[in-house]
Amino acid sequence: MTATAFVPGHVTAFFSVHRTGDPETTGSRGAGLALSDGVRTTVEPSARTTVHLNGREVDMPPVERVLDALEATASVRIETPLPIGSGFGVSGGATLGAALAADATFDGGHSDNELIHAAHVAEVESDTGLGDVVAQARGGIPIRLEPGGPDAGRLDGLPARPRIEYVAFGELSTESVIAGDVERLSAAGERALSTLRTGPTLPRLFAAARTFAREADLLTPRVETAIQAVGDAGGEAAMAMLGETVIALGDGLTAAGYDPAVCRVDPRGGTLLPEDGSISF
Amino acid sequence: MTATAFVPGHVTAFFSVHRTGDPETTGSRGAGLALSDGVRTTVEPSARTTVHLNGREVDMPPVERVLDALEATASVRIETPLPIGSGFGVSGGATLGAALAADATFDGGHSDNELIHAAHVAEVESDTGLGDVVAQARGGIPIRLEPGGPDAGRLDGLPARPRIEYVAFGELSTESVIAGDVERLSAAGERALSTLRTGPTLPRLFAAARTFAREADLLTPRVETAIQAVGDAGGEAAMAMLGETVIALGDGLTAAGYDPAVCRVDPRGGTLLPEDGSISF
Repeated sequence: MTATAFVPGHVTAFFSVHRTGDPETTGSRGAGLALSDGVRTTVEPSARTTVHLNGREVDMPPVERVLDALEATASVRIETPLPIGSGFGVSGGATLGAALAADATFDGGHSDNELIHAAHVAEVESDTGLGDVVAQARGGIPIRLEPGGPDAGRLDGLPARPRIEYVAFGELSTESVIAGDVERLSAAGERALSTLRTGPTLPRLFAAARTFAREADLLTPRVETAIQAVGDAGGEAAMAMLGETVIALGDGLTAAGYDPAVCRVDPRGGTLLPEDGSISF
Repeated sequence: MTATAFVPGHVTAFFSVHRTGDPETTGSRGAGLALSDGVRTTVEPSARTTVHLNGREVDMPPVERVLDALEATASVRIETPLPIGSGFGVSGGATLGAALAADATFDGGHSDNELIHAAHVAEVESDTGLGDVVAQARGGIPIRLEPGGPDAGRLDGLPARPRIEYVAFGELSTESVIAGDVERLSAAGERALSTLRTGPTLPRLFAAARTFAREADLLTPRVETAIQAVGDAGGEAAMAMLGETVIALGDGLTAAGYDPAVCRVDPRGGTLLPEDGSISF
């Protein structure tokens, strides 16, 4: 018996880091976009745990951790069109997807919050993410008002469901940024969140994200050039945290002469798929 | 300019009533299922507010209330395949859908939680619902752990996404039940929630719902007969609150000889639809 989950991708527009001694209350505040380009994870019971990403065997510590937490050993197959290590939440998506699919496969009887908690904790303990899992579990355009897992955290969102374009120029390591000195970054993230909360609209989200990337000193030349080009063409673009990646509303990158991937804001949170594996409901 | 929202239907398996002086903290605890058969609501600005349900002009006080709260006057067109007044959350779905679509139409800049709050308050003040809106905003199989709107309430859920069958025999008035003496009903609802929380699985949800309907004295002969017939055929069925309605897992009603409508548990919460109006993302 196997089970498959779909979890949307997630790009973070801005964030602040909040660490406590407890992984459930450790997390991030911020905002981002859940994407219809996501991660499909299939779990099949097996004598030992193996993880394949787009057909290649890989080490994914948070996926292995979440299976351990659920006392499952399984063959995990992850398929995604998203660039890896580029700020799309592939790690969080695979971890939450593995939790959902493992629970269904092993008839575990966990609630949504228990599975989201397990995936959040696995990401925090692996230093691979702080806020992707709760945002990906929610879907839409999540605003993380309070940090942490499903019991400690608090979420809101923007109701818009726009078309999204993206270009990934290269990788940035989440671990190297969020494990380092994040005081300045977090201060910028808190300011961005305050700005967004004074008027929760898409243009304000993108403007706050651009200010955050500059203040947190995360821009690279290619990212800065692309954001500028989209703005010059009358569009809205921002950097995705943490990757050398630019996202734009509507046809912003196309209008600026780039050749982007295209998806939408996804309204679903991470979810088991019907047994026939179809992605539509 | 118009905007359209889709909100899943919602059948309540069991509930308890919690009233305070404040509509945000007034609500219900309980559990239910969000359904892929739902409510599609289109809002178009207009000099005065009118509401059409499946093509016929109707009075829907919570829809009118939520537009008032958003300071909007509009023509509202509601389309649904769901039976009206039969426990499917058409009222909550139309109210939340009107809030989402009105915000998009009038460029209102409200967050998700603000719109869910406005819809929840409109339902509570109209005596048309206590927990549908927050459940429909979430999607899936929502468990309402704490009553109230998005700021006061707390939700969990079951991760399963089964096929659902339903038969509606007739109407029951939500208003006449939840405005009356609900002490016995609420005590039964609290016991059902405790039972579900000891092991959050679909069979336990349905068993708790059956016990609740009996203890709250809401069963009608036709509902009781159908639930019994599905059980005798090896399936899981329960009454939907508040309607003379039976829901079953998988092909439970078909196997028992009924001719049910068929849908799925819907993973989405209520959401704006893309501008081309397509329901798939």
